[in-house]
Amino acid sequence: MSLTVVGTMAFDDIETPFGKSDKIVGGSASFIAWAASNFVQPVNQVSVIGGDFPQDELAALTGRGVAMEGVQVKKDEKSFYWAGKYHLDMNSRDTLVTELNVLADFQPVIPDSYQGSEFLILGNLTPQVQMSVISQLNPRPKLIVMDTMNFWMDVALEDLLKTLKMVDVLLVNDSEARQLTGEYSLVKAAKKILTMGPRYLIIKKGEHGALLFHENHVFFAPALPLEEVFDPTGAGDTFAGGFIGHLAKTKDISFENMKTAIIVGSAMASFCVEKFGAQRLREITREDITTRLEQFVQLVNFDIDLV
Amino acid sequence: MSLTVVGTMAFDDIETPFGKSDKIVGGSASFIAWAASNFVQPVNQVSVIGGDFPQDELAALTGRGVAMEGVQVKKDEKSFYWAGKYHLDMNSRDTLVTELNVLADFQPVIPDSYQGSEFLILGNLTPQVQMSVISQLNPRPKLIVMDTMNFWMDVALEDLLKTLKMVDVLLVNDSEARQLTGEYSLVKAAKKILTMGPRYLIIKKGEHGALLFHENHVFFAPALPLEEVFDPTGAGDTFAGGFIGHLAKTKDISFENMKTAIIVGSAMASFCVEKFGAQRLREITREDITTRLEQFVQLVNFDIDLV
Repeated sequence: MSLTVVGTMAFDDIETPFGKSDKIVGGSASFIAWAASNFVQPVNQVSVIGGDFPQDELAALTGRGVAMEGVQVKKDEKSFYWAGKYHLDMNSRDTLVTELNVLADFQPVIPDSYQGSEFLILGNLTPQVQMSVISQLNPRPKLIVMDTMNFWMDVALEDLLKTLKMVDVLLVNDSEARQLTGEYSLVKAAKKILTMGPRYLIIKKGEHGALLFHENHVFFAPALPLEEVFDPTGAGDTFAGGFIGHLAKTKDISFENMKTAIIVGSAMASFCVEKFGAQRLREITREDITTRLEQFVQLVNFDIDLV
Repeated sequence: MSLTVVGTMAFDDIETPFGKSDKIVGGSASFIAWAASNFVQPVNQVSVIGGDFPQDELAALTGRGVAMEGVQVKKDEKSFYWAGKYHLDMNSRDTLVTELNVLADFQPVIPDSYQGSEFLILGNLTPQVQMSVISQLNPRPKLIVMDTMNFWMDVALEDLLKTLKMVDVLLVNDSEARQLTGEYSLVKAAKKILTMGPRYLIIKKGEHGALLFHENHVFFAPALPLEEVFDPTGAGDTFAGGFIGHLAKTKDISFENMKTAIIVGSAMASFCVEKFGAQRLREITREDITTRLEQFVQLVNFDIDLV
């Protein structure tokens, strides 16, 4: 029941109204691996890092059952670096610095040991890299989940549309769903996207939860109302990691089980925002996760007599 | 199990990206009565109208079990009139005209026949009128629900705070909860509001659903994802009407039953936005409501194994 994860392992430098993180480990594949490894092992990591990437981070992930054979190390180069500053509402942010570094010419190579992965998640990356990974995995994984962002819609739409035809589940946020389809109504946007390739669509709405669309069905998962969102960086990737982790653990890709997986993803994301970067994800126990899932049940559970 | 409703019965003139309504019947008490009368009768209406208010509207409401004895008719004056225009996102609107007319010097008088009402809902009105109604009802209703808006926080905060101490449930939207408390986090805002009088707080988030807070508990009800929101006018009042209607029908004011009541309110609101004004509320059947409630169950229902 192995899972392959493709994405960035990088440095983030985050400023929020609550403080500054300085340079800490981030990147889509980092958050996905930290979240998913609570549910499934091995997690086959595919990424690229520079010689500056901390050894203790690699050791910590290895200790969680994350395989590093597919992580290229370019010793004389620097890891991908992003710096950003959140506005007071914590919903919008400015990018201050983006240094692609090792990511600039990243050509993923899937190790033989990763072949046979039943689950694949493509973290936010150039669609060409995402397609390259799909084409290297033989047999095709049972389920392919793809994350993307508005940037690729702006600069690589044609490749993005090609990649969409190769995946089962697409993850985007509300504004990205609108941009991709030209539809303001998320229900209309979802209908269009479900004709573009993916059979399942998850629209993330941040603090307002997430919607899962499949055929004519729709499911809604709330975000946990929190006193404080300390740092939203990586929450979407953590959500994705919890989602795919639960699916890979249960090996059940039915719509019903995807509902549960989205709740698991929402629970993991609710931890992520409590501290800078992936710090909180390093600390939490199985018991913390169970308690948090119970909170989600309480949050949305109601009885109704429909007679 | 009677319910008393206080609020406006008025004319609205609405413009949306989809068209113009021209002058149609609106007002908080109208929407509340149309929604609540699906669940409980009589609905004891308290309001004020001018000689221009349509007789067929009064007859239609009477036919639904809405008592009109508490509705003052000022034959030589005009009914309250509001005109507004929604922006493209349908979330924000500009008020074009507000004519208070009969509302300017409204002094509610509770008829003897309304005494003994177990449930009271105070639609959005000046806090002084809301307090006057509470003080006239003897014995005090079993549950008092109050709606209000930012306008009263701006111009009558002292009276508003006094009124808050007299009610059990407060209904506000997210920006109003923030304005009332100075807290951006809705969880922090809720904690503050629950020290100001109400034991229950509902924060409406429009298309993003609604939160119910009580002591340390929180419940979340989604809005139904719709292809099209045709006209949001009255959706909040309709939500309130469904909420209080379910409570009055079941006579159960436990937190558990309030969860169900919020789902009922959300279902009623989802009808309201489908056509101009209260038009859709006039058409729907008991069967339509049951089908819609079933959609809400499907929307949020999930299974999870917490072992």
